[in-house]
Amino acid sequence: MRADARKNRDHLLAVAGTAITEQGIDVSMRDIARRADVGLATLLRHFPTREALLEALLRTSFDELTAKAGELAEGSNPPEDALVSWVRDCVAWTTEFRGVTVPMAAAIADSESALHASCVTLRAAGARLLARAQAAGTARSDIDGDDVFALIAMLAWLGDQPSLAPRADHLFDVVASAILTSTGNSVAQGERSARTRG
Amino acid sequence: MRADARKNRDHLLAVAGTAITEQGIDVSMRDIARRADVGLATLLRHFPTREALLEALLRTSFDELTAKAGELAEGSNPPEDALVSWVRDCVAWTTEFRGVTVPMAAAIADSESALHASCVTLRAAGARLLARAQAAGTARSDIDGDDVFALIAMLAWLGDQPSLAPRADHLFDVVASAILTSTGNSVAQGERSARTRG
Repeated sequence: MRADARKNRDHLLAVAGTAITEQGIDVSMRDIARRADVGLATLLRHFPTREALLEALLRTSFDELTAKAGELAEGSNPPEDALVSWVRDCVAWTTEFRGVTVPMAAAIADSESALHASCVTLRAAGARLLARAQAAGTARSDIDGDDVFALIAMLAWLGDQPSLAPRADHLFDVVASAILTSTGNSVAQGERSARTRG
Repeated sequence: MRADARKNRDHLLAVAGTAITEQGIDVSMRDIARRADVGLATLLRHFPTREALLEALLRTSFDELTAKAGELAEGSNPPEDALVSWVRDCVAWTTEFRGVTVPMAAAIADSESALHASCVTLRAAGARLLARAQAAGTARSDIDGDDVFALIAMLAWLGDQPSLAPRADHLFDVVASAILTSTGNSVAQGERSARTRG
């Protein structure tokens, strides 16, 4: 890509990021073009679909969350702590992009979507962390990567609703306890107590 | 209300119900008026806000769910089964009105909303069932009626996302297990086994 094309693209992404932060994920391509002071055709030349724009915008976050899962999988934390910590990171990240869970939930089942591959990678990262905890007997054996992805989406949606958001942290703990077995919960509880004591 | 006014109102409600079933909760008042073949002003004379229309439309369901909670609270089922059964009814009901959780979540915190009183009544019904299970030691003690309301909304949202809906029943069980204590889970599990055997 030529330097000026790259610069224009970066400008459009920055504007889109601000627009989404201010107006939510449903902001139209037309609004973004207007804010960026370019024609809609110009915006569409860089990003032919909303999903393509989102994919570019979320690229760094996707990479960071995937890398984080890799680190956690190789770290010395108990597997159930690694899993819950990563799920927490994913939920926290979505609060930066209000409403992002709806297009992500749609994209995971739509192989034509520009967001599909990133969502699949994210789901696989969660599935790996889940499998480790399941192998250790600390996560329930009847859930899979799809369930973890859905639980993240559900908790993210909750944090997005102004009236429900005050309960989001507490309900995160409630739902996290459901992912773990009683062994996993007591280990995680022990870790928390140790952190509090330390 | 005069008979013809009642008839017009019922017609508008029937049309609105169909419109919401087909287009989802975001269908505009203008679209509903057009479908009913009346002017927007006529629709607004009957229902001054979207919330007022929703309140009228959901009135019967709200009454049924509240009555159901009352029956369950006085029935002979274990309190944790009564709680989970009612939460399941609430979640199932929302599938009839795709997207209804968003306006309901907004209304619970907005005393000006025409939906507010019904949402508060529903929350109180859930809180009562929760308190019974807590008193029996079968529901966790660190959640309240707000949490139950939020969990219902979250599970309803999940069922509304086409790609996540296939996991909704399974995740209902996962989340329900988190509401209960281990005693509550084993009692509920025993009930399920007994039903299967019977």
